[in-house]
Amino acid sequence: MGACHGVIKRIAPDAQVIDITHGIAPTNVLQGALVLASTLPYMPEGVHLAVVDPGVGGPRKPIAVRGGDGRLFVGPDNGLLLIAAERRGGVEEAVELAEPAYRLEPVASTFHGRDIFAPAAAHLASGVELAELGPQVPPPELVRLEPPAPEFGARRIRATVLDVDRFGNVQLNLASSDLERVGIEPGSLLEVGVGSERYYAVAARTFAEVHTGDILLYEDSYGFISIAINQGRAAEMFGAAVGGKLELTAVRA
Amino acid sequence: MGACHGVIKRIAPDAQVIDITHGIAPTNVLQGALVLASTLPYMPEGVHLAVVDPGVGGPRKPIAVRGGDGRLFVGPDNGLLLIAAERRGGVEEAVELAEPAYRLEPVASTFHGRDIFAPAAAHLASGVELAELGPQVPPPELVRLEPPAPEFGARRIRATVLDVDRFGNVQLNLASSDLERVGIEPGSLLEVGVGSERYYAVAARTFAEVHTGDILLYEDSYGFISIAINQGRAAEMFGAAVGGKLELTAVRA
Amino acid sequence: MGACHGVIKRIAPDAQVIDITHGIAPTNVLQGALVLASTLPYMPEGVHLAVVDPGVGGPRKPIAVRGGDGRLFVGPDNGLLLIAAERRGGVEEAVELAEPAYRLEPVASTFHGRDIFAPAAAHLASGVELAELGPQVPPPELVRLEPPAPEFGARRIRATVLDVDRFGNVQLNLASSDLERVGIEPGSLLEVGVGSERYYAVAARTFAEVHTGDILLYEDSYGFISIAINQGRAAEMFGAAVGGKLELTAVRA
Repeated sequence: MGACHGVIKRIAPDAQVIDITHGIAPTNVLQGALVLASTLPYMPEGVHLAVVDPGVGGPRKPIAVRGGDGRLFVGPDNGLLLIAAERRGGVEEAVELAEPAYRLEPVASTFHGRDIFAPAAAHLASGVELAELGPQVPPPELVRLEPPAPEFGARRIRATVLDVDRFGNVQLNLASSDLERVGIEPGSLLEVGVGSERYYAVAARTFAEVHTGDILLYEDSYGFISIAINQGRAAEMFGAAVGGKLELTAVRA
Repeated sequence: MGACHGVIKRIAPDAQVIDITHGIAPTNVLQGALVLASTLPYMPEGVHLAVVDPGVGGPRKPIAVRGGDGRLFVGPDNGLLLIAAERRGGVEEAVELAEPAYRLEPVASTFHGRDIFAPAAAHLASGVELAELGPQVPPPELVRLEPPAPEFGARRIRATVLDVDRFGNVQLNLASSDLERVGIEPGSLLEVGVGSERYYAVAARTFAEVHTGDILLYEDSYGFISIAINQGRAAEMFGAAVGGKLELTAVRA
Repeated sequence: MGACHGVIKRIAPDAQVIDITHGIAPTNVLQGALVLASTLPYMPEGVHLAVVDPGVGGPRKPIAVRGGDGRLFVGPDNGLLLIAAERRGGVEEAVELAEPAYRLEPVASTFHGRDIFAPAAAHLASGVELAELGPQVPPPELVRLEPPAPEFGARRIRATVLDVDRFGNVQLNLASSDLERVGIEPGSLLEVGVGSERYYAVAARTFAEVHTGDILLYEDSYGFISIAINQGRAAEMFGAAVGGKLELTAVRA
């Protein structure tokens, strides 16, 4: 919805707005946090507004945060902002967005994006100081998310689905180094287990290395390992949803 | 499609374009009219271009309108623009977009957005006078839509679905005051009736007040009452579509 | 994903970015090539970045091309850019995007849009010369796509589906003149054949000429003939997918 853009442009007419994505599921705070953290290095420095906010209108605080590298973050205090901020030098200062002068009153209880977060981001972009937006929140009191950790066996890994993208690719909480640890190397065959089902897949560098319909693992643009079907949809085949588990087993050559 | 953006930027390179939404169903003129009217207060003043146009290429006129507060509107004469214009001080002047110099000729019969409406909006944004775009249309001759009115019983309301959003939330033609009139207050239980089915729901202030899977009524960001399932999709459960009817009944405490 | 926008703005802060579409299927290079070619006349002159790239990370070259009219194109060497470039005066110069200084290193093997194409487009928009981006590629060596040609019978045409849009309309590889050649004129009845199924349709100028639920052929905004169901979804009814075949037969009056 363009209402947030409109609100920003009314307050900060010279601000340039770049949409990172509208593809995050409305309840998937962890996915939002990871996408924000991994996309940030590609974004111009500025004010980073993020809203994935299943607790909107409840007791969670609306906050703004300054990271150690000077970037500013605005969003709900549900862990969404902190993985990004902590990768950028930690949280240096945080405030609760409580000052009515920097909100659109009356605030609709289910649209804080428009009435609290967008105005705060626009005022920050216009040069308002963080401390003017509301009372300080000690950084240790902010809500933090723990990204799920993979579980390692002898030649297998149990991984968690972080994301399913619009092509049906399944993003896992794994890096290349995790695959190497259990003996899955580029070019090698592996088994993907979902419930009681087993599928063969290949650890590939690119889609071009495999045939149409092949299942492949690859390092995606965020540096995560993802599973795809070349010119198909892996998520549907695996019944994969965010938070679900998959097991990868190296196959001896 | 970016063609409309491109057309605008070729005519008015300094214009800034904000997309309000691309989520309106292509035949739902009433929904478009209501979203335009309710979003407008959050938008910078300017030229407001709207295209929900099932009669494209037929006898309906392409028009531009000046509201009483000076805002300009461009779109089809099917009622899409007028709810917004009338909330902003009424229609002060209207013209038919007939002047070939301000259209892209030849006009494709099914893409007036690109060939008639976007050029007109861009020329207006560049300072062309409304009257130059074509002959005057007397405001009373413009097509008007009648938003559906709720029907009230003793402790019940029969409401119409205005919109189903991308989260499956169901927007009704009701305000908070309508609920209060039949005794449905924040925190109270109610029954939602669809055909012969009955569901319990709670009149909530926010999603955070209810459990996962609960059905709730809430005031949405436009000030309409919407029905949602917390972390679920109400539209699918109710088989709700735009224009459909739901009955809300207060439940005695 | 906004990462490409972010990358462009970091390199070329004053560049204005217009998204043509995000609606092209990720493997449909031909559809992308045709949409780029037909949208280009509506876009301001500049650098045109296109990524429909099923062979990403494989041997296909990343390229930049200058057309005869001075427009610049950036994308994969899979035919995506060339229909557009050749309609704009042919390919005057082409280079392979090999120069590391104009890429984001390390390049992720599956996200050349962000790491190769967006940086190249941004540097070109900032005034970097095409020849600086990498070694020349002789234009005849570039990959070209052959758009499918319709097959004509006495009173029938066998056509190929180029695109299915978000309204379920089915775009064919036909122009109005192709219909006239087999005797299908505006207002006339015809038969649409899909596999062993037959449907009646009307060759219309606009949706307003037919009733709700009627099947119609019309010239779409790109100048292609498309099939639609008024207020319905033709693609689902016909089981139509890109590359599929439909047969149109004139019905004697």
